[in-house]
Amino acid sequence: MSNIGIVQTQYYTIEEKIKLESGVEFSPVTVAYETYGKLNDAGDNAILVIHALTGDAHAAGYHNENDKKPGWWDELIGPDKAFDTNKYFIVCTNIFGGCSGTTGPSSINPETNKPYGITFPVFTIEDTIKIQKKVLDYLGINSLYSVAGGSMGGMQAMQFAITYPDYVKSAILIATTSRLSPQAIAFNAVGRNSIISDPAWNNGDYYDKEQKPDRGLSNARMIGHITYLCEEAMYNKFGRRLQDKDHYDFNFDIDFQVESYLQHQGQIFVDRFDANSYLYITKAVDYFDLENKYGSLQNAFKNTNAKFLVISFDSDWLFPSSQAKEIVNTLMTLDKDVSYCEIKSNCGHDAFLLEYDLQSKIISSFLNTHIQGEINE
Amino acid sequence: MSNIGIVQTQYYTIEEKIKLESGVEFSPVTVAYETYGKLNDAGDNAILVIHALTGDAHAAGYHNENDKKPGWWDELIGPDKAFDTNKYFIVCTNIFGGCSGTTGPSSINPETNKPYGITFPVFTIEDTIKIQKKVLDYLGINSLYSVAGGSMGGMQAMQFAITYPDYVKSAILIATTSRLSPQAIAFNAVGRNSIISDPAWNNGDYYDKEQKPDRGLSNARMIGHITYLCEEAMYNKFGRRLQDKDHYDFNFDIDFQVESYLQHQGQIFVDRFDANSYLYITKAVDYFDLENKYGSLQNAFKNTNAKFLVISFDSDWLFPSSQAKEIVNTLMTLDKDVSYCEIKSNCGHDAFLLEYDLQSKIISSFLNTHIQGEINE
Repeated sequence: MSNIGIVQTQYYTIEEKIKLESGVEFSPVTVAYETYGKLNDAGDNAILVIHALTGDAHAAGYHNENDKKPGWWDELIGPDKAFDTNKYFIVCTNIFGGCSGTTGPSSINPETNKPYGITFPVFTIEDTIKIQKKVLDYLGINSLYSVAGGSMGGMQAMQFAITYPDYVKSAILIATTSRLSPQAIAFNAVGRNSIISDPAWNNGDYYDKEQKPDRGLSNARMIGHITYLCEEAMYNKFGRRLQDKDHYDFNFDIDFQVESYLQHQGQIFVDRFDANSYLYITKAVDYFDLENKYGSLQNAFKNTNAKFLVISFDSDWLFPSSQAKEIVNTLMTLDKDVSYCEIKSNCGHDAFLLEYDLQSKIISSFLNTHIQGEINE
Repeated sequence: MSNIGIVQTQYYTIEEKIKLESGVEFSPVTVAYETYGKLNDAGDNAILVIHALTGDAHAAGYHNENDKKPGWWDELIGPDKAFDTNKYFIVCTNIFGGCSGTTGPSSINPETNKPYGITFPVFTIEDTIKIQKKVLDYLGINSLYSVAGGSMGGMQAMQFAITYPDYVKSAILIATTSRLSPQAIAFNAVGRNSIISDPAWNNGDYYDKEQKPDRGLSNARMIGHITYLCEEAMYNKFGRRLQDKDHYDFNFDIDFQVESYLQHQGQIFVDRFDANSYLYITKAVDYFDLENKYGSLQNAFKNTNAKFLVISFDSDWLFPSSQAKEIVNTLMTLDKDVSYCEIKSNCGHDAFLLEYDLQSKIISSFLNTHIQGEINE
């Protein structure tokens, strides 16, 4: 398969006030985005792919020739890949409130010339997709051939199909849920608590300080990572193997490989992510609850016109298949067009970023066969 | 059912040097213990019950008339209860390295007149049961009619039956495992990391400081608590209900009941537990690995003479039934006397402290019928 090569992140600034679900009016918002492929003249061959909790707009390709890693969904995006850039115009934006180019708590508030910190407004998943919609409008996209995402990206894709029923032709919801379980909320809450209780967090005001809340953020990431894997994945990856030693050390250094892995994940995370963004984004995820927002899941989906593809992974215990099935059952009850596939995997929740063989085939078949012929070529 | 009434914690100090598995020789060790019932003349009607991660020697009864809560296994210990104090002499000790009366990192090192802190030696599960054995010897117990424990207490009970095969007539292993899964190690590791990365931990030297590592310890406890419950328990207990409000607050205060519960659990924990003890005890639990220690689980159990009762709970995902079954299968292969029961429960790992109806019946039937007649009355 060929690749899309070198790509560049672009920026679009929305100057008008955006009314958030909390009631707060907020502006300006700069959105970082990338595009792959070409928009057709009718403006209807676009696919919005949406990143998960800590992702960014760099979904595919390389930023320069020395780049070691391509974008986060490079396996799925490119010429002849599942999201085929020969046919589709792929767009990916960094989430509102994030820290990879889009306005978030680490951005400078033009009124104070200081970072927003926790004066940044708390937002919801629907807020984030309304902001993405403005970027799509700006790009001249008249309708979305599809909107796709895994995990939090799947929540946003779902919300997109609900908020803009006439704009969205299809939605691909992967490893996602219409609302977090209390257990998943609990993990997020402990992660946030870990950040907030780090003295260096300093009530969110740490950007010009020497010490950042790295320890709290790193710990939050470690907790998250446990939930992204599954027991089987951990047995396969680490077992109870020791790290660079044959015997226990009888001290509080790292003994096990799994400890070493988590610490490493925590440490590299703080270099690329902002602690306040982590607070805001996990809060938006906790708040996402279609049942509560619309009275019922049926009510939430009743006006959608999109064709749905729902994919879950059997070893995902964070967003388990039972939650995907609830969405599928609701859509079937409503007589909506829905395809569902549970992929066998031992990668846990992370599978949507790792298990590409079957995912590729299912997505390209859905896009090319199931909803083919609806692009105005 | 009647109760055992007011009880008192007692103390026994072992003055002789104890050689720990790490090679370190350590003394003196004071052990806090409680007893319920009477030891018979033959000294063979004793049952050692062993507490879990954060428990103490106070397994049953009340310490005074104003006590609001009885000991941690009061439902199972007393006249006519599963551990029947009319028949048996029940002993419970606080673990070596703990913080509820037994010598641990918060105890004063007589050589320096300062708390040990992290100069306290790292120890193992076998170390803890060897120390308990010295208390049993001191009490004149010639053999154990049974040794019983849940979770980490079950690990110790198992190790007791292995280390002292001729001393232990039966062992009751509840919600336990012969070695932690990498996932369980990961949760412990993140908990420890949370404490160690709290600046107030101060390399374990905080006992005379104004600020203690309460935030780190509280966070560790919150992580632990998630693993003690199961998804179903969390749905039943909290669902996605909000705490004292009808709508989201759009800030970083507590929104959900599950958050409030966990924060409360974290906060009350720091009043009764020492952060260093948490580090040492979780490390001992991580190190426990019968397969690795004896070459195989079969080798570990091959010389045991105890009759075994193994109980697991189907919703326990921290120490899942599959791990209990591994122990049971090994014992069966070795032609040992073993009974096994998987109790249906929606309480997760915590079930051993909550599900008493069936547990009571199974334990008393095992003690009274299965191994009856072996006490020299």
